[in-house]
Amino acid sequence: MADTLHLASDPVELTAALVDVPSVSGDEARIADLVERSLKEQTALEVTRSGNTVLARTNLGRPSRVVLAGHLDTVPINDNMPSRLENGILHGCGTVDMKGGDAVMLHLAATIQDPRHDLTFIFYDCEEVDAVRNGLGRIEREMPAWLNGDLAIVCEPSNGVIEAGCQGTMRVDVRTKGVRAHPARSWMGVNAIHAMGEALRRLEAYESRQVEIDGCLYREGMLAVKISGGVAGNVVPDEAVLQVNHRFAPDRTPEQAEQHLRELFEGYEVTVTDVSAGALPGLGAPTTRELIEAAGGTPVAKLGWTDVARFAALGMPAVNYGPGDPLLAHTQQENVPVHQIQQCADVLRRFLS
Amino acid sequence: MADTLHLASDPVELTAALVDVPSVSGDEARIADLVERSLKEQTALEVTRSGNTVLARTNLGRPSRVVLAGHLDTVPINDNMPSRLENGILHGCGTVDMKGGDAVMLHLAATIQDPRHDLTFIFYDCEEVDAVRNGLGRIEREMPAWLNGDLAIVCEPSNGVIEAGCQGTMRVDVRTKGVRAHPARSWMGVNAIHAMGEALRRLEAYESRQVEIDGCLYREGMLAVKISGGVAGNVVPDEAVLQVNHRFAPDRTPEQAEQHLRELFEGYEVTVTDVSAGALPGLGAPTTRELIEAAGGTPVAKLGWTDVARFAALGMPAVNYGPGDPLLAHTQQENVPVHQIQQCADVLRRFLS
Repeated sequence: MADTLHLASDPVELTAALVDVPSVSGDEARIADLVERSLKEQTALEVTRSGNTVLARTNLGRPSRVVLAGHLDTVPINDNMPSRLENGILHGCGTVDMKGGDAVMLHLAATIQDPRHDLTFIFYDCEEVDAVRNGLGRIEREMPAWLNGDLAIVCEPSNGVIEAGCQGTMRVDVRTKGVRAHPARSWMGVNAIHAMGEALRRLEAYESRQVEIDGCLYREGMLAVKISGGVAGNVVPDEAVLQVNHRFAPDRTPEQAEQHLRELFEGYEVTVTDVSAGALPGLGAPTTRELIEAAGGTPVAKLGWTDVARFAALGMPAVNYGPGDPLLAHTQQENVPVHQIQQCADVLRRFLS
Repeated sequence: MADTLHLASDPVELTAALVDVPSVSGDEARIADLVERSLKEQTALEVTRSGNTVLARTNLGRPSRVVLAGHLDTVPINDNMPSRLENGILHGCGTVDMKGGDAVMLHLAATIQDPRHDLTFIFYDCEEVDAVRNGLGRIEREMPAWLNGDLAIVCEPSNGVIEAGCQGTMRVDVRTKGVRAHPARSWMGVNAIHAMGEALRRLEAYESRQVEIDGCLYREGMLAVKISGGVAGNVVPDEAVLQVNHRFAPDRTPEQAEQHLRELFEGYEVTVTDVSAGALPGLGAPTTRELIEAAGGTPVAKLGWTDVARFAALGMPAVNYGPGDPLLAHTQQENVPVHQIQQCADVLRRFLS
């Protein structure tokens, strides 16, 4: 591995170089070191670091500031490393989510010499795990001035179109209790796993809402992500836990989403373990309209939760815009067409220059 | 802890002393040491050891031999140690299953001077875990002559009545497969946990058979004992595994039980992970009838699987007879009325002397 990245080079090569540095959530030290060293070679930037989050900004006294943000971590590698370029498609863990976006940001940081707005770049850790570990959340708590700006662009994959707002996400534990007994006389106990059948039945029968806001269509989700229960092979189980993830449209607050989950799982013990609010699309702001014009096309709804919600909560317009098909995020066959990386860099250069 | 046990003393005190030596499956070295040392003080006995199983026998040239067997291990301690004697009831982990029976065996080994039959005593390890680890099974494979005899009495708790035969037990893994995807677009994946709902539904709706053999009523069972599934909080799960335990009456072979399970979970991947055949009651054998007369009362069906099945498979008559209510086995409130320990010792002394 090289000591630094050639930020001014082709952003596609830069994407491949980033993909080839493994950075599963919690293990971002190497990639953060590399990004930090590379940014520090850019004399026009103020660079700092917090844990495995690297921050850089211009201080040119421009009347407005645009914040660009991307996470450095990936979901667990799934037999899809190192990167592989084939017929104009770059394959590998993180190509879509979101080292293509990171590469565009790094490339712009090194090559836009005279931006119209002051620029802030945030490369952060632990986005793919519980919200409490999110590096951008830590920056918000500990170095909040770094998030200030007039528009935030989170370079999550959006197929090269502006994705507006994002859905909220909530995880709950749905718990059943029983009474232990010997399986030879199972009728003397109460089986906590059998009691989970009804909860799964409600999930299967659940019909998700589709909500249109500012012309963007949000499609909700309600699904089991984990289940566990049982004591030993010779004991009637007295506890089972089902972890449910609810993705909710940004017309609902976290409180409303929680109420909805409690109604769905009425009769069960429900504990919220993780929550992130959604963000309304907010397409009316002037800088957002400028970006939409530079990108062309029609903005669409962002279904996955992204950190745009964090900026939206601070009162800033915030959108997702980055290379790669979000449908491929977290799949083994993650890949990004290289022309999208180039296009994304071109659009942002036009908007920012 | 004393170096040895006073085997000739009150079997109730002996039970308490055994309970106070923790011996969860896999951790029986201390109790086996103690039992071995105590038996070696009895000069009339040939004593040997295999792992944490201790074996002792008389060699008096009697025309018949009775084998008494008891396991030394317990299920995990559940805030129910040490033993506590209150109003004639001894409480604590293992009081019922089955240190009361072990104490009776040890007491008889030390105090019957001139038995009518030669006697074999087997104190073995790892009964409460997968059949493959069972100490008596190891003895059967490695030292089979030690199991020979004309009648086997497994001193598992039977409320002081003769329990005849035993039910078989089979554990299977019921597995679902899915396709991973991002939860924000869960309709792109296939949820392996949701697919488990139907399996739990079949378990809930299942009606167990009740079968009468030799006047003994066997009640079957079909229950989930464990469940697990899921990759991470942000991935549609692509696998879930439900562990099901089937307890089947001794009119069914393991092959028939497996067939029944495969029919019940048709459409699922089913893998047998553990199996032990049942044992027919076999109440007609002459030594069994003698024991029934000594005990008084009417034999009943044994519901739980016990190692009588192992002796039955060798062609020997085999029964369960021991102190304590089997309904309390594996529960936190395990306890045994001390008069049952005394009664059991008296009946077996009458039968064997």
